[in-house]
Amino acid sequence: MFDHVEKLKEFIRHRSISTDSTQREGMKGAQEFVSNLLSSLGFKVEVVATDRHPIVFAQRGGDKSWPHVLIYGHYDVQPADPLELWKTPAFEPTIIGNRIFGRGAADNKGPLLTNIAAVAKLLEENPQLPLRITFLVEGEEEMGSPSFPKFLERYADKLREADFVFLSDTALPNPDQVVLTCGLRGLTLFDVHVTGAKGDLHSGLHGGVLRNPIQALAEILATLHTPEGKVNVPGFYDDVREVHPWEREELRKLGADEKAYAEFLGIDSFYPTPGFSPFESARFQPTLEINGIGGGYQGEGTKTVIPSKAFAKLSCRLVPNQQPDRVKELVIAAIRARTPSGVKLTFVDQHKGDPYAVVPPDRSNTPRDQSPVLARAFRAADKAVTEVWGRPPLYLREGGSVPIIADIKRVTGLDSVMFGLFLPEDNLHAPNESFNLDVMKKGIETTRRMLADLARR
Amino acid sequence: MFDHVEKLKEFIRHRSISTDSTQREGMKGAQEFVSNLLSSLGFKVEVVATDRHPIVFAQRGGDKSWPHVLIYGHYDVQPADPLELWKTPAFEPTIIGNRIFGRGAADNKGPLLTNIAAVAKLLEENPQLPLRITFLVEGEEEMGSPSFPKFLERYADKLREADFVFLSDTALPNPDQVVLTCGLRGLTLFDVHVTGAKGDLHSGLHGGVLRNPIQALAEILATLHTPEGKVNVPGFYDDVREVHPWEREELRKLGADEKAYAEFLGIDSFYPTPGFSPFESARFQPTLEINGIGGGYQGEGTKTVIPSKAFAKLSCRLVPNQQPDRVKELVIAAIRARTPSGVKLTFVDQHKGDPYAVVPPDRSNTPRDQSPVLARAFRAADKAVTEVWGRPPLYLREGGSVPIIADIKRVTGLDSVMFGLFLPEDNLHAPNESFNLDVMKKGIETTRRMLADLARR
Repeated sequence: MFDHVEKLKEFIRHRSISTDSTQREGMKGAQEFVSNLLSSLGFKVEVVATDRHPIVFAQRGGDKSWPHVLIYGHYDVQPADPLELWKTPAFEPTIIGNRIFGRGAADNKGPLLTNIAAVAKLLEENPQLPLRITFLVEGEEEMGSPSFPKFLERYADKLREADFVFLSDTALPNPDQVVLTCGLRGLTLFDVHVTGAKGDLHSGLHGGVLRNPIQALAEILATLHTPEGKVNVPGFYDDVREVHPWEREELRKLGADEKAYAEFLGIDSFYPTPGFSPFESARFQPTLEINGIGGGYQGEGTKTVIPSKAFAKLSCRLVPNQQPDRVKELVIAAIRARTPSGVKLTFVDQHKGDPYAVVPPDRSNTPRDQSPVLARAFRAADKAVTEVWGRPPLYLREGGSVPIIADIKRVTGLDSVMFGLFLPEDNLHAPNESFNLDVMKKGIETTRRMLADLARR
Repeated sequence: MFDHVEKLKEFIRHRSISTDSTQREGMKGAQEFVSNLLSSLGFKVEVVATDRHPIVFAQRGGDKSWPHVLIYGHYDVQPADPLELWKTPAFEPTIIGNRIFGRGAADNKGPLLTNIAAVAKLLEENPQLPLRITFLVEGEEEMGSPSFPKFLERYADKLREADFVFLSDTALPNPDQVVLTCGLRGLTLFDVHVTGAKGDLHSGLHGGVLRNPIQALAEILATLHTPEGKVNVPGFYDDVREVHPWEREELRKLGADEKAYAEFLGIDSFYPTPGFSPFESARFQPTLEINGIGGGYQGEGTKTVIPSKAFAKLSCRLVPNQQPDRVKELVIAAIRARTPSGVKLTFVDQHKGDPYAVVPPDRSNTPRDQSPVLARAFRAADKAVTEVWGRPPLYLREGGSVPIIADIKRVTGLDSVMFGLFLPEDNLHAPNESFNLDVMKKGIETTRRMLADLARR
C-alpha cells in the first residue's frame, strides 16, 4: 500500500536545492528517493549523468501496440531563504489542516508524487496493465534546465517512442476547478546599452552640449508602445496565432473578476493589448516588457553627472506562432531606426524559448493529424476530471513560459497534457510553500482513472 | 620675504579633507596655517565656529573712505582616493617641471595662496596701503558649504562693509589666456519616482495587463526635450536673460574648436540648444538633464519581472534670471501633465542654487547703478592682466555652478570679480591634481598690481 503523504514527507526532507552547491547531499537524496521508488514499482531506472545533476529516466516497457505516456517532473527545489519568514521549518514537512508545508511541496514534489502514486495504485490493481510508462525526472528545473537540451538530443529516439507527455507543473485557479493548460508563452530576452560621451561628464561644464544617453534611451523606449497599449514595432504581431472563440469562452467560464484583480495588483487601471481583456491579453497576446533600467547616479542625494552609459533589459513574451529570433530582430531593427543622433548602441543576447500550444480534440482549430493517442488522453483526462471534481476542466493557455515543453515538441514531436495541481496560495518560490492534500488525493484518483482509461483502449 | 612655493608646500601637507571625519588634525592644521599666516601679515583673525569646520574671518581695517575688498577662498580639499592612481604622494607636494602636484594644489590652496602672497607683497612694499582687506576662508566648500548660509546671515552687516568680492576659484582655458568669469549657472535638483503595481510581478503571469513603471517613466522623460534640443517644458525659457553681442564676441575670441571638443568628449555630433553653438549653449542656456535612472533588475543575466517602481534623478542648470523653485515647479507640472494612466508619481526635493552674473563696466548691459569701486576693480584687473599676461582677459560666463557667489549677492548685495587660475590639465577632484607655478607667479603679480591700482584711487 502506497502511503502518498508519508512518501511526500520523506521527499520534502531531502534538501534538493539545485543551485546551492552545499546541498549535494540533499540533491543526491532526492534523486535516490525517486530512483528507488520507481525501481520498487518495477521500473527500469537509468540515472543519466549530466554536467550538474543527473536525470532519472525510468521505463516500464511493454507491447509496442500499448499506448506510451512520458511523465515529466523534477526533483529539485528553489532555495528556501529568507528562512526567517517561514512559519514552519522549510525542510521539515508540517501538516496544518488540509495542507502540507515545506519547500518543494507544490513545486514539484507533491504533483510529481501524485502521478507516481497514481501509477503505483494502477499497477497494484493490475500488474499487467497494457500501458507503457516512462518517467523523466530532472534535477535542474529551478536553474533553467541547462543540461536538458543536450539530454533531449541524446535521448530523442527513445523519447519519440512515447505518444505524449503528461505533467503536473502548472496551476489550478482554485481547489474546485481543474485547468488543463494547453498553451505557454515563449520568450526572448536581450539588453540594450546606449553610450554617449566616452566618460561621465560634469553637467555644469558640459550640460547643453551633447545628448544624454539616458535621454536617448528614454526616447527609444517611449516609442515601443502605442498609447493604447500595442507593441509599436513593425511586424511584431505578424505571426500571432488567431484566438479562437472557444478559447475566449473557456476563459469566460473561469469567471475571473477584473476589479478583484486590479485590487490584487494595486493598480487603478489596466493597460492590455487593445481588443483584449486583461485576462485575455496575458494569455493570448505577446508583450514587450522593460524588466530593468539603469544609468548614471542612483545613490542618495545628487551627483551632477552626464553619464557615459545607460542600459535597459528587455523581454518579449511570445505566443504561437511567433519565433523568438525573428521577434528579437524586429525589435532591435526598430530600436536602431529610432535611435537619435549622438549615441551608439550595443546589444547583449540573453536566453530565449519557443511558445507552445496544443489544441484539445474536437475544437475548431484541432489539427487534422492530431495523434489519436493524444486525443484519447485528452478525452480520458476530461472524463476523469469531470468524474472526480464534479465539473469538467477548463482548457486555457497560460501567460508564463516553460521552455522545455516547446523544446520537447521541437525535438521529438510530442505534445503535452498539462494537469495543474498547485494553487495560487501555495506560495511557489516563496516562504511557506504548501500543497493541498485534498487536491493531491483527487489528483491521484484523476490520474489513475485517466491512465486506466487510456490503457483500456 | 614671502616664499609662496614653500608656503604652498606647507599648506598642501595638511590633509584637510572636510568630508573625512578621520582627518580632523589635517583640517585643524590647514585652518591654523591660514589663521597664523594672515595674523603674521597684520590681520585681525577671528576663527568663527560652525557646526562642522570653522571659518577664518580676517580683517585689515582702515579708513572708511578706503576701498574694501573681500577675498574668498577655502582651506578644505576633496578626498584623494583612489590613491593608487597618484604618481606622487597626494599629500607630499612634489614639483615636476613648472607644476606642483598634490591634493588641493589647484583647488583651492594654490589660488588662495596666490592672493595671500599678493597681499603680503603689497603690505611689505607699503604697510600704510590705503585699502581695507577682509579674508573669508571657509572649510566646507568641498561638502557644499553647509554652514555658509548661517554664517552669511550672522555676518551680513560686517560683509556689507566691503565693496566687492574677489576670488580665484575658477579656470583658465590655457596658461596664456586669463578669463574673468562673470556668470555662473544656478541649479535645481529633484528625483521623480514612478510606482505601478504594489509589488514586483512575474512578467509571464501578468505581462500584458498593466503599464510598466519603467515604460511610463521613459514616456515622461522622452517628452522633456524637442528633437532639436530645446527643453520642452512650457515657460522654461521665460526668464532667460538675453545674450548680449559682446558676450558672444568674447567667446568667439576664446577660439575654441568644435572638432577638438567633439574628440575630447568622444561624440560624433552635438546637441546644443537650437540657435547656439555648443560652447554658447553650455554657458548661456539652461538645461534639463537626467543624472541617473534606475528600476527593476539590473544584474547579470535576466529576471523576468515587471517592477513596482522606477525613478530618475533630474537637474536643471539655470541662467540669469531663472529662479530655481519656479523652474522646478514648471518641470514637475509638465511631468504630471504627461504621466500616463496606471502609475503614480512622487517627487523628492534635492538642493538648489541661484544663477549669478555680473557685467563688467562699459558694456551695453552694464547696470547704471553699478558700484564705482566694483567698476574700478574690473578696470584695474583688466589693466593688470593685460600688463602681466601680454593680452587682455576675456569676460565669460561659465556653465558650472558656485552657489555661494549668488548667496553672497542675495544677502549682502556684493558682486564678485572671479580671477581664474587653474588649468584644464590640473585634474581638480581627481588623482594627480597640480598647479602651474608660472601661472601662480603671474597671478601674484597680477593681483598685486590690481590691488595697488585700486588703493591708488
